[in-house]
Amino acid sequence: MADSAYDVVGIGNAIVDIIARCDDAFLSKHDLAKGFMRLVDAEAATRLYAAMGPATERSGGSAANTIAGLASFGAKTGFIGRVAADQFGGIFHHDIRSLGVAYDTAPATDGGPTARCLILVTPDGERTMNTFLGASVDFAPADLDQDMLAAAKIVYLEGYLFDRPEAKAAFRLAAKLAKAAGAKVGLTLSDPFCVDRHRDDFRELVRDGADIVFANEKEITALYEVNSFEQAADAALQDCEMAVLTRSEQGSVIVAKGETIVIPAEPVGQVVDLTGAGDLYAAGFLFGLTRDLPLPACGRLGSLAAAEVIGHIGARPETSLRKLAEARGLLA
Amino acid sequence: MADSAYDVVGIGNAIVDIIARCDDAFLSKHDLAKGFMRLVDAEAATRLYAAMGPATERSGGSAANTIAGLASFGAKTGFIGRVAADQFGGIFHHDIRSLGVAYDTAPATDGGPTARCLILVTPDGERTMNTFLGASVDFAPADLDQDMLAAAKIVYLEGYLFDRPEAKAAFRLAAKLAKAAGAKVGLTLSDPFCVDRHRDDFRELVRDGADIVFANEKEITALYEVNSFEQAADAALQDCEMAVLTRSEQGSVIVAKGETIVIPAEPVGQVVDLTGAGDLYAAGFLFGLTRDLPLPACGRLGSLAAAEVIGHIGARPETSLRKLAEARGLLA
Repeated sequence: MADSAYDVVGIGNAIVDIIARCDDAFLSKHDLAKGFMRLVDAEAATRLYAAMGPATERSGGSAANTIAGLASFGAKTGFIGRVAADQFGGIFHHDIRSLGVAYDTAPATDGGPTARCLILVTPDGERTMNTFLGASVDFAPADLDQDMLAAAKIVYLEGYLFDRPEAKAAFRLAAKLAKAAGAKVGLTLSDPFCVDRHRDDFRELVRDGADIVFANEKEITALYEVNSFEQAADAALQDCEMAVLTRSEQGSVIVAKGETIVIPAEPVGQVVDLTGAGDLYAAGFLFGLTRDLPLPACGRLGSLAAAEVIGHIGARPETSLRKLAEARGLLA
Repeated sequence: MADSAYDVVGIGNAIVDIIARCDDAFLSKHDLAKGFMRLVDAEAATRLYAAMGPATERSGGSAANTIAGLASFGAKTGFIGRVAADQFGGIFHHDIRSLGVAYDTAPATDGGPTARCLILVTPDGERTMNTFLGASVDFAPADLDQDMLAAAKIVYLEGYLFDRPEAKAAFRLAAKLAKAAGAKVGLTLSDPFCVDRHRDDFRELVRDGADIVFANEKEITALYEVNSFEQAADAALQDCEMAVLTRSEQGSVIVAKGETIVIPAEPVGQVVDLTGAGDLYAAGFLFGLTRDLPLPACGRLGSLAAAEVIGHIGARPETSLRKLAEARGLLA
């Protein structure tokens, strides 16, 4: 790809994760669907937090995790997302900038507090997420840094944010600006429930705005209302140039015009916390793309990054992904 | 010991730890003395935070960590310490209460924000702490919960807090109330610099208020201005009934009237983060005391709890200390 000021600019929710362990009985008692994300209001968030065990706080957010992963590979990155001017906003701001990511979205001084996600990790490593969107929810076209978008090779959009009319308008504008500047647009579907809520708008965005769609099996079949992975992949290729589909421990499948590439999952010693697996897969894949690597190599970088992040608590890498990839011979 | 509503009530700083990894060059560049705690003002804290890498936030505070450890052993516990009514105060409040610890100190609505400690962990596992005391600094006699103190078997005082005249007055009053109610008073010296700053007051508190003093080698020799550990231990026994002295990887020494007991350190697979080692040693030791165990057994519980906490990032246990001790045959 051509030289640009940014390899990837991400747009998504700016969230602080509040991570606690729990057992399956806790999920049942609080009526939580294991492995999914649900949105909660301030009151429900407060109630659930009070019931949770001692927690660890870390910066999160799906696209922000992807951007953190890209920075760990050595990419030039930027992020756009909305925090409030509060202590959690300070955590988010510090952590992403300390990775060398350009992040200049002004903290909101009115409206809700910085978004937080109550993440419950069960002994099997599965995570169940309860997101209070707070300040993130008011994301609007005015929050876009147009210069940053125009200076990116790839603009990466987080589906979770694609929920309110103003945020949808922002995504459409971002995709338009990116295309006009010759950038590729990646979109992650994020969540099957979110896809269900906004199916028509998502389809339109994939068709008119996105070059590459990232999804897991549930999300892509929800988008096209089909029963099989294969049907969904075929449908996606009618709408955009590439679909990057993750299948948990079965690895991933990259579907592009004329080729289907199956990538195995990277072996993991112990699955500690699945939070961020998809986000980090996208980081590795996108890093490969920005370096013009062949698609199988992009996929293997994705698997490697995903394997790192599920080996510990928290959704951002704890070791240099660049060095890890070099040690495996995936990068020179 | 007789039955009481609380096995141990702790009084100390109520702090949120902000933990990041760094290399030794970072410490040198920022003129930080490795392995020590220093107090910083808001401006220095902000400057250092901006220079630090991505971090994890967790509840901390020395006596609060000890109380968390005691709760993990199954003790009935209470904590007294001052946060502000802000998001970090919310983290501290949630985490300690979620362990079953009674914690009712009212959050301060004026003055500084909740205390935070910027902890830099080097690859050798050593931690270097930079504490901005914020709301903790205004601790005063009015913050004491007199009913709670009167209902404790042991009242445990954190030396770090013993810095301002008002906090000193609170400690003297707490010791007096505890004694009047028949409770034992434990005091941890916390830090050689703090001991240097307030040597006479500390000596007076040990002599007049404390039954058991907890210290490491540097702290106890600083208190008595002697060169050897043995001289310091002898001097301590003139002032109180027991000195519990930790010596890092050399284990600990318990000095009581007529006996000196040497306890080996518990073997640790990998030292990840030394933060909280002394705090958790005190937790295990105090738990043994509340169960009337012989001193060598108290010391071994201390070593076990310290070993658990230095095996991971963060200063509070991540596994049930009760179960760990049962598995080792240290508790039935």
